[in-house]
Amino acid sequence: MKFVHLIADGKPAIALADTDMQHYWPLADLVPGFSGDMVQLVQDFDNIRSRLAARGAGRPLSGARLLAPIDRPRRNIFCVGKNYFEHAAEFSKSGFDSSAKEGEHAPEAPVVFTKASNTVIGPGAAIPSHEGVTSQLDYEAELAVVIGKPGRNIPRERALEHVFGYTIVNDFTARDLQKLHRQWFLGKSLDGFCPMGPALVTADELDAANLDIRCWVNGELRQDANTRQLIFDIPTLIATISAGITLEPGDVIATGTPAGVGIGFNPPRFVKRGDVIRIEVQGIGVLENAVD
Amino acid sequence: MKFVHLIADGKPAIALADTDMQHYWPLADLVPGFSGDMVQLVQDFDNIRSRLAARGAGRPLSGARLLAPIDRPRRNIFCVGKNYFEHAAEFSKSGFDSSAKEGEHAPEAPVVFTKASNTVIGPGAAIPSHEGVTSQLDYEAELAVVIGKPGRNIPRERALEHVFGYTIVNDFTARDLQKLHRQWFLGKSLDGFCPMGPALVTADELDAANLDIRCWVNGELRQDANTRQLIFDIPTLIATISAGITLEPGDVIATGTPAGVGIGFNPPRFVKRGDVIRIEVQGIGVLENAVD
Repeated sequence: MKFVHLIADGKPAIALADTDMQHYWPLADLVPGFSGDMVQLVQDFDNIRSRLAARGAGRPLSGARLLAPIDRPRRNIFCVGKNYFEHAAEFSKSGFDSSAKEGEHAPEAPVVFTKASNTVIGPGAAIPSHEGVTSQLDYEAELAVVIGKPGRNIPRERALEHVFGYTIVNDFTARDLQKLHRQWFLGKSLDGFCPMGPALVTADELDAANLDIRCWVNGELRQDANTRQLIFDIPTLIATISAGITLEPGDVIATGTPAGVGIGFNPPRFVKRGDVIRIEVQGIGVLENAVD
Repeated sequence: MKFVHLIADGKPAIALADTDMQHYWPLADLVPGFSGDMVQLVQDFDNIRSRLAARGAGRPLSGARLLAPIDRPRRNIFCVGKNYFEHAAEFSKSGFDSSAKEGEHAPEAPVVFTKASNTVIGPGAAIPSHEGVTSQLDYEAELAVVIGKPGRNIPRERALEHVFGYTIVNDFTARDLQKLHRQWFLGKSLDGFCPMGPALVTADELDAANLDIRCWVNGELRQDANTRQLIFDIPTLIATISAGITLEPGDVIATGTPAGVGIGFNPPRFVKRGDVIRIEVQGIGVLENAVD
């Protein structure tokens, strides 16, 4: 199933969408009384899933304004750094990674940091350029995991049982702040720095270990990879993060970005006002945002 | 004013406490209809403050079970690393800081990371030892700022207008995980790793730039400093974090720990099951927790 968060009848609503994103059915029409957000849907899913089937022709998605599937996570977004070999190499060489060891090619364990929860914006929303705060804006196309079943100390082999589904995020970054402050949180957390969408796709519909992921800047292909190239795969990430930390329904884990970000070029190719970043992940859709 | 979060009549409640923590007055008795948490109080404060005066003898605080003032922050806790000179030096020398530059004594800009929001526990609550996940437990006594008025790009000279008040946190840390994962988030975020309390004291009652801060382990004084020794003072921290990031009412900023943590010793003196960590910050009170 594919779920979207959109403005329907002038109000934010969660809806079921068809695979090719042509039509939607507001959840409140399928499950009378449902008025929650996407996290509520994730929590209630086992109880209501039998009622989640398209009824009738649905409403046209074209023209509806999509919001981020989870626009205000209950806590910060978990993010993984340097999780594709070629990107780990380009970042280490760039001089922007204050934690890289001399000559290191890939981290020995997942590098996990967070983005503030109010960074999330929806498909089509403008990414603020924060002039005066940063002058080194960069994009990072990523597959994001949304947790369904809560758990702690989840073993790798049971990790996928805890996944509700997947979406796309752009782990937008102020490289100057990321470098200056050593820990990456500030450079990753400026308001608007986490475009997310266009849909949340349930886990049963995707083979998350084999999805093409691509990113274009102003139509130029910059990132072109597949999630099978992840250094630490999704079960490993869930096992690592949940070791001592209880994962909760609606938690979002951004799994890392492939090679081809702006600082992978020499000299770096930062993005600026007016640039359009388009990310496509196979089976999920397209997330496009312009910098403003 | 001093506010506490406690179990009153079998239910969690916010209450006004007297300065020496002898008596309390449930907020619902002073402001009929108030049933919110501490973040709600922070948000409503300007509207209800005229009614926040002790009425009658109050109820005895001894025997009441205190909870963390903000036990479930709306997003992760903002934390500042290496913010006292002597601690920055002991940490850099310890070998546990994967982001230290060769020969560095103090960071050139605030080092900001987060702790997951479900790390928070109250005064007296047990800190889980997470055996099997970590074997290097350490304590960090810190003054924590609670934001009142929201804001972004707050100038340093107006920063204190955005402070609601102050509390104490123990930025408990798994040093092995902090080192292994480079970014500090995981080692800082195990469940129960943020004891907080005993009270939230409004900003007008304290000179936060001149507070004694001390920490004992099993009665032995380990940390003994004053907040005037902060490398980056509270206005600078607020200006730095709010540059591009909207601060919200109830946000918690832990300002960093002084010298004397376990890894400051050679060999390191980690804490273990049964050890009791007692933190005192002048004007706020005592926060004591045992490791279990």
